[in-house]
Amino acid sequence: MKLYNYFRSSASFRVRIALALKGLQYDYVPVHLAKGEQKQPEFAALTPEGLVPMLETGDGLRLTQSMAIIEYLDETHPTPPLLPADAPGRARVRALSQIVACEIHPLNNLRVLKYLVHDLKADDGAKTDWYRHWVAVGLQAYEARMAEGTRGIYSHGDAPTLADCCLVPQIFNAQRFDSDLTPYPLTMAVFQACMQLPAFQQAQPSACPDAEP
Amino acid sequence: MKLYNYFRSSASFRVRIALALKGLQYDYVPVHLAKGEQKQPEFAALTPEGLVPMLETGDGLRLTQSMAIIEYLDETHPTPPLLPADAPGRARVRALSQIVACEIHPLNNLRVLKYLVHDLKADDGAKTDWYRHWVAVGLQAYEARMAEGTRGIYSHGDAPTLADCCLVPQIFNAQRFDSDLTPYPLTMAVFQACMQLPAFQQAQPSACPDAEP
Repeated sequence: MKLYNYFRSSASFRVRIALALKGLQYDYVPVHLAKGEQKQPEFAALTPEGLVPMLETGDGLRLTQSMAIIEYLDETHPTPPLLPADAPGRARVRALSQIVACEIHPLNNLRVLKYLVHDLKADDGAKTDWYRHWVAVGLQAYEARMAEGTRGIYSHGDAPTLADCCLVPQIFNAQRFDSDLTPYPLTMAVFQACMQLPAFQQAQPSACPDAEP
Repeated sequence: MKLYNYFRSSASFRVRIALALKGLQYDYVPVHLAKGEQKQPEFAALTPEGLVPMLETGDGLRLTQSMAIIEYLDETHPTPPLLPADAPGRARVRALSQIVACEIHPLNNLRVLKYLVHDLKADDGAKTDWYRHWVAVGLQAYEARMAEGTRGIYSHGDAPTLADCCLVPQIFNAQRFDSDLTPYPLTMAVFQACMQLPAFQQAQPSACPDAEP
């Protein structure tokens, strides 16, 4: 398998964690988002969205959208599972993942921040306020979910799931923007627990071949 | 089952389509987003996110996040299926759904447009440009996917899927903002095909009990 990705892309990071949790080997193909390499013809020919991550499987499938890729990996390589076996648990894990992937990350990724600055003439302060606002709205919801009865070491029980694959990159990202994370102690405890695991450590941006200081 | 939702919420509309496709009955509980009813204590006590849709199941589960709700419905009421049986097909349908749910809708929902106007002082023109920009970026990707080999009447083959549940509400929304949809003929053909089906007609905003002109 080949993973087209970028060390700092939080959606790429999600897939790297899932691959590492499942012990799957892959070729790392860097696509430098900040330099716009995702818009180059070679990459666009592979995937019309021009987005990373894109996973090329051994049998030639080209998969896009991080949550869809991780569900595919979970279906084709079921051990260890990244979703619970029960439908309510699966719904909870998917909803947690989507708090990050549908409520926080889409508002705060590179192309959106660029639009704010270039098209809406937002200054640095306004851009940072925007970033932190959506992190806070999303993490408040995540924290409320962590306070529910279903607590465990990780976001859902005592094994990492799709939700943790989504949460951890978002926390890395929020830390880069100096978001205040003290209101989310339960969420941060999950983050710390994840970062004790080799899979999360190996997948983190600083461990990537294309990492920059 | 009770569906807490809002006639104009595109994420609510997705779930209404899924419920209708599966022939499931439910009580419709309106939550008026434009009046801020989702922030009232009665609703917040039910779901910490304060977002619609929220589905309360017969056995007391309270499910959030539209894609997670639809996957739950698909797992617990498998007929007719809203995801293909094969893993590559499932990955494709989920990725299509996420083009809408992670790349377009999060940028264009009510609370984000309010932030643009109130906090970033965007005028009407800038707000509309923003809206149409993200619709165009997302639908270009969707259209490219529709041009792939896997064509059918709907987004994936000849039966409606989760992808169509996500696409149709987004098109309704884009039409409200007068987005130019002529560059997406394949996507619009899918939309038209969906709108021939009673399930999509019954779920549309104008057919809801809380519909406003």
